[in-house]
Parts: sequence; C-alpha cells; structure tokens
Amino acid sequence: MVRLEGERARTVWQLRLFAEVVRDGRFLDLRVDPALPDRKPLPRPDLRLSQIPLGPVAVFGSSNFPLAFSVAGGDTASALAAGCPVIVKGHLAHPGTGELVGRAIREAVETSGLPEGTFSLLNGANETGAALVNDLRIKAVGFTGSRGGGLALGAIAAARPEPIPVYAEMSSINPVYLLPAALAVRAEALGSGFVESLTLGADQFCTNPGLIFAIDSPDLDRFIVSVSAALAQKVPAPMLTSGVHAAFDKGVAGFAGHDAVNVLGKGQPADGVNRSPAAFFETDVEHFLEDEKLSAEVFGSSSLLVRCRDVAQMIEVTEKLEGQLTATLHIDPNDHADARALIPVLERKVGRILANGWPTGVDVSHAMVHGGPFPATSDSRTTSVGILAIRRFLRPVSYQDLPDDLLPAELGDDGLSALPHLRDGVAR
Amino acid sequence: MVRLEGERARTVWQLRLFAEVVRDGRFLDLRVDPALPDRKPLPRPDLRLSQIPLGPVAVFGSSNFPLAFSVAGGDTASALAAGCPVIVKGHLAHPGTGELVGRAIREAVETSGLPEGTFSLLNGANETGAALVNDLRIKAVGFTGSRGGGLALGAIAAARPEPIPVYAEMSSINPVYLLPAALAVRAEALGSGFVESLTLGADQFCTNPGLIFAIDSPDLDRFIVSVSAALAQKVPAPMLTSGVHAAFDKGVAGFAGHDAVNVLGKGQPADGVNRSPAAFFETDVEHFLEDEKLSAEVFGSSSLLVRCRDVAQMIEVTEKLEGQLTATLHIDPNDHADARALIPVLERKVGRILANGWPTGVDVSHAMVHGGPFPATSDSRTTSVGILAIRRFLRPVSYQDLPDDLLPAELGDDGLSALPHLRDGVAR
Repeated sequence: MVRLEGERARTVWQLRLFAEVVRDGRFLDLRVDPALPDRKPLPRPDLRLSQIPLGPVAVFGSSNFPLAFSVAGGDTASALAAGCPVIVKGHLAHPGTGELVGRAIREAVETSGLPEGTFSLLNGANETGAALVNDLRIKAVGFTGSRGGGLALGAIAAARPEPIPVYAEMSSINPVYLLPAALAVRAEALGSGFVESLTLGADQFCTNPGLIFAIDSPDLDRFIVSVSAALAQKVPAPMLTSGVHAAFDKGVAGFAGHDAVNVLGKGQPADGVNRSPAAFFETDVEHFLEDEKLSAEVFGSSSLLVRCRDVAQMIEVTEKLEGQLTATLHIDPNDHADARALIPVLERKVGRILANGWPTGVDVSHAMVHGGPFPATSDSRTTSVGILAIRRFLRPVSYQDLPDDLLPAELGDDGLSALPHLRDGVAR
Repeated sequence: MVRLEGERARTVWQLRLFAEVVRDGRFLDLRVDPALPDRKPLPRPDLRLSQIPLGPVAVFGSSNFPLAFSVAGGDTASALAAGCPVIVKGHLAHPGTGELVGRAIREAVETSGLPEGTFSLLNGANETGAALVNDLRIKAVGFTGSRGGGLALGAIAAARPEPIPVYAEMSSINPVYLLPAALAVRAEALGSGFVESLTLGADQFCTNPGLIFAIDSPDLDRFIVSVSAALAQKVPAPMLTSGVHAAFDKGVAGFAGHDAVNVLGKGQPADGVNRSPAAFFETDVEHFLEDEKLSAEVFGSSSLLVRCRDVAQMIEVTEKLEGQLTATLHIDPNDHADARALIPVLERKVGRILANGWPTGVDVSHAMVHGGPFPATSDSRTTSVGILAIRRFLRPVSYQDLPDDLLPAELGDDGLSALPHLRDGVAR
C-alpha cells in the first residue's frame, strides 16, 4: 500500500510537472532569425522555428509500475504534453488498475474540454499491439518492457510504408563498480546497502543492480560476507506476475547451474505464490566475457559479481559491455584517479552515471536521463523519464516570411514577447 | 564559377558558424537539478546533464553540392562540431573535388592539433559505403541522396547487432500553392519567378518546386502563358552527371507519355552533353491521386501543375501527399483565410513552410529546418541544414552525485558559471 501510494504520488507529480513544462514554453525551442534584406550576395528571409506534435502516439506500459510507467505514466504524460493524442495498449498484468486509471484520464479529458480522441485505452493481446503500431495514423510508439517485445515493435514500425520512431526502453543490468578505497573503508555498509537495493520490491526495476565489478581482495571478501549475511535474512517479496516469476526462476537456475558461476548468497526460502529467494552469484572476467548468457538481464533480485584482477581489467571488461541505463561507482577520494579512467568508457555505455548510491531511484526532473545505448533503449538520444522525454514526440517546423497573422501564435511578435526564444542565436 | 564561389563561401561560413555554436556552449543543453537532501518522502540527489558525441559518423555527400553538401558539407560540419570523428564516403560524381577538400580538412586537423582519426575520406562504390555502415565502430550515418540509397543504408543500419540512426535526406517534390488572390494580382510575375526557380542550375536541388497546386481559372491560364513564354527562352544547363541526366530524361518521358498529362511548356532544345530542355506539365487532381508515379520526384527542371476545383480540393489532395521538405504559399492578404485552413495540413507534411518566395534557397541559420516527414527524410525530428543539425550527433548523459572533480568540465561549478544552463528548469 505504501508502495502504491508512493507510486501514485509520483504519477500525479509527473503529470503536474509536464503541465508546468507546457506553460513555461521552453520546450518549443523557439528560434527567430529576422530578415536581413540587405545581406550580400543574397538577402536573408525571416525564419521562425517552433515544434509541433508528431501525431497520435501508441503507448505500451510496463508491468512493473502499474501507475508511473503505464496508462498514465511517463510516456503518456510526455506525449500528451507534446500535444499528441495517446492510445494506450493496456498491460495484461494489471487490466483492472489500467481501466481505473484510463477512466480517470477520460474524465479529465472531458472536464478539461479537450477533444474526445485525446486519450484511449485498448485492452488486448500482442496482436492488438501489433495492429496499433501498424495503423498508419499512429506516428510514434513508447514502450517499456522486454528486449524481445521492443525489438518486435521496432520491426513492425520499420516495415510500415511510413516508418515511425519506436522509443523502447528494454533491458539493462546496470553495472556497479566497487573501487578499492571505497571497499577498504566501508565494505560492510556497501554489502548491506546493496542487499537493500537488490531486494526492495523484489527488485523488479529496469535499473536493478544486476552486475557488480570489484577487484579481488580481502576487502571484497568482507563485502561478500556482509551481502551473504544480510541476504540470508531477506524474506522473498511477491513478484508481479507468474510470467515474471517463471522468467526469474529460469534465469537464476541458469546461473546456479553454470560451471563457471558460484553461489555467494541466497535469501530465505519462498513461502507463497510468485515468490523466490533473492540470489547473489560470482564469476571471473574470463568466463563473463566468454558466455553472453552471463550478461543477460535476470529481472528481479538476482545479481552477479564479476571478480577483476585490477582496474585495467575492469575497464577492459566495461569496453565490452552492451549499452545500459545506468552505471554506479562506489568511490572514496583515493579512488578518483581510477574513476577518472573509467568514466569516459562508461559515458559511451550508459545514460546515467552515479556515485555512492544505488541506481534504483529515478527522479522525474530536468536533468534526468533514463535511457542509454542499445539495447538499454532503441534510441540513445532520448530519455523516457524526466522533462526531456517530451522531445521524443515533437518535431521542428520552420516558417519563412509568413505574415504575422498566419504564424502559429507562439511565433507571432506577441507570442515571442511572452516566451523564451533565441533571436539570431541569442537567448531572449 | 560564380556558383562554385558562392557554394565555397557557404561551406566556409557553415564551418565557422558551427565553430561559434561550439564556443557558445548552448548546444550542450546543460541542466542542473541541485540535491534536495530534505525532500520527502525521499531526498533528491544532485543531477547534472550534458551531451556527449554519439561516436564516429559516416557521411555520404550528395552529388549536387560538391562543396556545401559533400566532404566538408553540413553533415561533416555538424558531426565534427558535436565532437564526432567523421568518415566521408566520397561521391563518385566528384572524386577530384572531394580529394581536394578532404586534403584541406586533413591539413586543418593537423594544424589544429586534433587527433589524426578526426577525419577520413574513403573513395569507393556502393560496397564501400555498405561496409562502412556495417562497421560496428560507426555510431551514426548522414546521407543526402536518393530514396533508394537512403532506404538501403537504413536497412543495413537497422540489421546491425547494434542498430544506429541513419539521417537520410531523400526525396521531395516541394508543393507550391498559388492561391486565387495572389494569382489574380500577379499571375505573370509568378510565372516568370517560377521559371527562374525551375531552371536555375538545372534545378538540381532537393527543394526544387516539382509540384504546383492552383485553382482552375482565367488567372491560372495567365500564369501558364507566362510560364510557357519564359520557359521557351531557357537554354538547358548541363546536369551533374550522366546518371542524373538519364534519370531526368526518363522521368520527363514518363510524364510526357502519360495519358492524363499535358505538356504546357518546354525549354530550348538541348545542345551539348548532359543537357535536356526544362519541362512543365499539367494534370488534374483525380489523375494525380490515381497514379503514384505522378508524385515521384523528377530531379531537375521539371514540374507538374495539378489543377484543383477549389481550395477544399487543394486541402484534400494535400492530405494525401507524402512527407516533403518544403511547401510554398503564394498569397495575397485576401488569401489569408484559405491559407489558414491549409497551413495546419501542411505542418503535418513538411519541415518548412514559406510564403511568397521559392523554396530553393536554404539558409544556414538557427531557425532553419531542412527536413520533414518520411520520405523527405528518414527522421522528421531532425534537420540536415542549420544549427539544429548538431543535435543528430549528440546524446544526453546524466551525472548523479558525482564529485566536482569527476564531472565533465562543463558541469563542474566553474564550468556552469561560464555557460548557459537550466537550474531547476530556470535559465541561467
């Protein structure tokens, strides 16, 4: 209940924040280059640029946040803020919640006097989703879910007579780096902090810390002891659906039965439906690089420690990682030199780099990036959380020498005087 | 020679403008959300956002601007400005010019002390281009050329283990709307202005006015008479390559031999290699909509007039157009009501709407959009000309709670004090 109330608060706050963004007008990225009739060799026309909505957007919510990443979630909020009508394909894991939220939005659309088509909710299976993406009236797609699902929608969208962008947030194992000085100073605290992050809500988050890199040392052994002890106390939380639960069990069994993998820790035995104990594994760099199954996402409370020889090897293995949503550094001042060598590599791999925290919290704000190179997302230039999510659903249009009364209101002289814009590249 | 000097000036100006953009720093779109340690229910971390280059970019220049849209053209300038190394696949139509320009850039790279890999020029056929796009070190592609070429590169890029964005500027027939009051007032001037635009440089521009919509009337007949008379004086200019010339002849023959198409005007007979007379055709809306061959691009001095019954039919046929780079309105104050009905439809079809001019000039500035919905380009959210072209080669990275000395220089407290940024969404 606390989790649900927190998620509801986040969902409402997100919608309000996008309303503020729209009022502020900065998202329109207005630009004016006034006419230069005397320019040589050719006069310059009057050019004014604004953003228009792409058109109707299909949103596929995720199973793990029935409120914040589903019917009224970030994709819906940012698409509506951009001025795009939204058609949500409801997630089969929470049809009732979806229906309640969908009705609330329909009511809001009505009481706000918006056109009826502003929002729709469709329930159905995969074929419904495929038909939606194939409908030529749809101009963009937002998706949060599995790599398979995201790639399937991307293939449908690319094969249309008019291809459209699919913003799919897919899979990420979110590497965590425990650097030597930090481990020396606080191995035990890192161990218990990690277990809290790994087990909160059965860690069914796209930013769950599924991979740990650390250098072999007695301090690392202290960390492992701390993790095992804390994990042994943890009672399994229920998972979202039987499908998610079955996939977790399969992933954990794959690690547990792997020749090159040791089990380092385990949560309490499961007691109840859709529950399984959390699990912590280890392997070394050579085996990690040899078998790509070891870098596949296991959605839930499972994580793999990869023992490295030194920082150079840590960087080497990072170079070979696929794209990720986040990377986390645990560092002390004495680790800064190593971190400085690692960060340029991480920048090319992830959308968010964080220090001395855990990646699972994703703030809805101006500077947030919840995105990253493929396969974390299908479009590394975008974020699905935070203000910049609105950019995914806009495109620029330039107006040349249009009379003031034919310009969009925001680009007329009155509109410009009230809104932030660039004039010849200078902020006004 | 005048054309070449003008194009060289544009190319140099474009490079200088992007240098200014980099110095200005606004392209980094810096955002800071300071920590809120006392926020409830959870504290907010310190979040800072900047942009990083996507990585090495493959550039495929166009045949029609050996300077401004080729080796040192807009794609190269904007990718280098974003911090991306560039590998140009030289166009076979101008290997010598390409080589000269490429050497100039190599020299500039050396004298500026940039890494040697900053710029490379490859010569070769289609297989060279395909191999380049397939190389996993390439992270984005800029292309200007045919629809077939752009789609082929897009398919290669999408099939890579890590798909990458292809920014292809492809085909556009750039509809021109002659509204009734404007025609009544200045049919003759519109006719001669149109012929100048249609025949300048054999109209080998992506924004050539290949399609005219006008309402059947005696004023339209005056326009046609004016066009025919002006066209009859025009001596054919040489086209860029024998391939471009052959494609033009084929396109014109297709129109000339079409049952539903009349020839309205023709330039002087050709005299010399790779030259053909300009051509002006007409059809009606029904036949235009029936046969999609009539809306295919004929690259060069050929244009098709589509006679409409009224403004309603003009809007109806516009609804069925594919995406375009530009739309042009010729209007008088008495046309504004009609224009107001047409513009919302045009906004969904094109990247730039212009009034009382011709679309062939494309200014390099802050408010320019040289882009548009598919198939004008492969990504309607982007422009290949103007300042915003740099955005295609950047992606955001968010830094959470990083110590000042580990942040990118622009995001540290010193960097921020010198650069434009948003703090909690407010411009600083």
